[in-house]
Amino acid sequence: MTMKVSGKKYTSIWRNEHKQVFIIDQRTLPHEFKVVELKNLNDFCLAIKDMLVRGAPLIGVTAAYGVAISFLAGYKKNDLDFICNRLLETRPTAVNLFWALEEMKKFLSSINKNEIVEYAFKKADEILELDIVSNRKIGEYGLGVIQQILKKKQSNKINILTHCNAGWLATVDWGTATSPIYHAKQKGIDIHVFVDETRPRNQGAQLTVWELNHNNISHELIVDNAGGHLMQHGEIDMVLVGSDRTTATGDVCNKIGTYLKALSAYDNKIPFYVALPASTIDWNLKNGLTEIPIEERDQAEVSHIQGLLDNDNIEKVNISLIGTSCRNPAFDVTPSRLVSGLITDYGVYKANENSLKALKEMVT
Amino acid sequence: MTMKVSGKKYTSIWRNEHKQVFIIDQRTLPHEFKVVELKNLNDFCLAIKDMLVRGAPLIGVTAAYGVAISFLAGYKKNDLDFICNRLLETRPTAVNLFWALEEMKKFLSSINKNEIVEYAFKKADEILELDIVSNRKIGEYGLGVIQQILKKKQSNKINILTHCNAGWLATVDWGTATSPIYHAKQKGIDIHVFVDETRPRNQGAQLTVWELNHNNISHELIVDNAGGHLMQHGEIDMVLVGSDRTTATGDVCNKIGTYLKALSAYDNKIPFYVALPASTIDWNLKNGLTEIPIEERDQAEVSHIQGLLDNDNIEKVNISLIGTSCRNPAFDVTPSRLVSGLITDYGVYKANENSLKALKEMVT
Repeated sequence: MTMKVSGKKYTSIWRNEHKQVFIIDQRTLPHEFKVVELKNLNDFCLAIKDMLVRGAPLIGVTAAYGVAISFLAGYKKNDLDFICNRLLETRPTAVNLFWALEEMKKFLSSINKNEIVEYAFKKADEILELDIVSNRKIGEYGLGVIQQILKKKQSNKINILTHCNAGWLATVDWGTATSPIYHAKQKGIDIHVFVDETRPRNQGAQLTVWELNHNNISHELIVDNAGGHLMQHGEIDMVLVGSDRTTATGDVCNKIGTYLKALSAYDNKIPFYVALPASTIDWNLKNGLTEIPIEERDQAEVSHIQGLLDNDNIEKVNISLIGTSCRNPAFDVTPSRLVSGLITDYGVYKANENSLKALKEMVT
Repeated sequence: MTMKVSGKKYTSIWRNEHKQVFIIDQRTLPHEFKVVELKNLNDFCLAIKDMLVRGAPLIGVTAAYGVAISFLAGYKKNDLDFICNRLLETRPTAVNLFWALEEMKKFLSSINKNEIVEYAFKKADEILELDIVSNRKIGEYGLGVIQQILKKKQSNKINILTHCNAGWLATVDWGTATSPIYHAKQKGIDIHVFVDETRPRNQGAQLTVWELNHNNISHELIVDNAGGHLMQHGEIDMVLVGSDRTTATGDVCNKIGTYLKALSAYDNKIPFYVALPASTIDWNLKNGLTEIPIEERDQAEVSHIQGLLDNDNIEKVNISLIGTSCRNPAFDVTPSRLVSGLITDYGVYKANENSLKALKEMVT
């Protein structure tokens, strides 16, 4: 299965036989569906930095193709470190960016310089394929978690809250947090998703809603403030989110506001699961709160909001007093004690060092 | 002291010697400062329902003048119940609306029908004055709480997070949650306020920021998702919010999202205080979660956001896929176990039935 847009199958990034790489410009969704070709290193860096593409896994895959395209555009094997550093500087939090570039470097170091273009594309293709397989597996394992919750609830109807977009737009296909949802839907489970709008960039309102709509998943949009109230009143059976980086001890860094939903889930005894490929785990880190760098983004993301005017123009409006100072941390860390489990491409793990040690042995 | 707009003193509602009642239309702030005269019962009902005025205490005062203006406009003493019912139907959650109308009814029942206009204005004036005095007292008691926190911190610098607008725009003057802030500023305390934007209607971004700016209080705007992260990193010393209704047991109903901040404050051992006049306490209620009706407002408040375009027009933009279903609960309930204390116009009380019993005996 590939995810659908208006009935047509799509992935969030793809390349053709002429080595042209295309992405969906996610900044104008849901109002405008725009495909963009990324032609050189600069295009790739800007696409990541300005969030034409976003989501930890997709950032990794995009960076891999960024390396390949750079060689195609004339960079030499000697430039590999330079290229990777340029790409690495774009966003600081997602570990997949680092992981994908390390994979490229390791693989390409032994490749003959005359064959570097071919092999760089080959490796980027592999990273892309791995992402699709990983997310399909996350979906299968996550389906098991959903089935357990339904069994306990003695019902075929599940209400899931998700934050931000950990959908196929954040990966190549399937998504991380959405993959169990799509798999559950395929199994005939009656599934309903509450979508946090996810200020400041509204990835929930703009991307997750759009994805779920195109793939016929029942959903309602809520403001980020509303989830706690819904949990207090028994309207949510499970919280399911993605991650941008998770420590070897199970602390989960994800889009800002995730921590608040985890607290609320914990307070209301609602399972809080994180769906992530093993490549999102940073095995070097033990304390998410002190060790993961949190990106502070532009104040304008807080003071302004983009949307569609009545005249169908996409515009930004200033929602506060002009000139107001804003703080804009883009991620927060949910301590492992609040996490019910990590749904990975290798199975479901407890969010603690002991449990994750078994996973580490498999993947490193 | 009366709060200032561009250096000029203002209250959120006032009447002149010709019995004309004026309010500030809060819907176009901070971009446009517009004074509106409310001339008849219909004007008052719409002003409350459409949130030209909002905030539990201000809603109460406005309703009181709504009764007075109705008599001035031709309604008779016999119509008192009808008038009060019309006003009561506008918003379901704030108890002050109910309280103010009961005060009017009790007082006017013994008034001669020929003198009803004069006495209705007299009583409404009293309710307005009472609000100003109450909020000044809240400020004085709240200042004491701030000083205690500073003493413990051994510092003259305090960082306070507030949610929504419990400022003078939500009352007549001073505000509830902002009153201790204004009092602390007057005492020379180095105070900084993190303002939650407070989706869906952005009262924080639109009103609190505007108020603090006009009264020279240092502040930064943040999205509702960011407070937890700031608390985890020691950037917040105190959370201070208002309330739309509080139970006799200390459960606090306030703007949606307050509960999430209370959870986070509790998790990070940060004092979480609620500032409210005693009139906001509903002595009939023991369980906030099951007994307080939570208003569900229009979906368009979630799907659309209002702001200022580059061309200086105030417009609404649709931030999600057109036609997306939304849920829009306007308030939530913070259980008393998460509340450090209630700062009232009669002193600071613990959020439990025993402590509040003493307050009840004073005010009922």
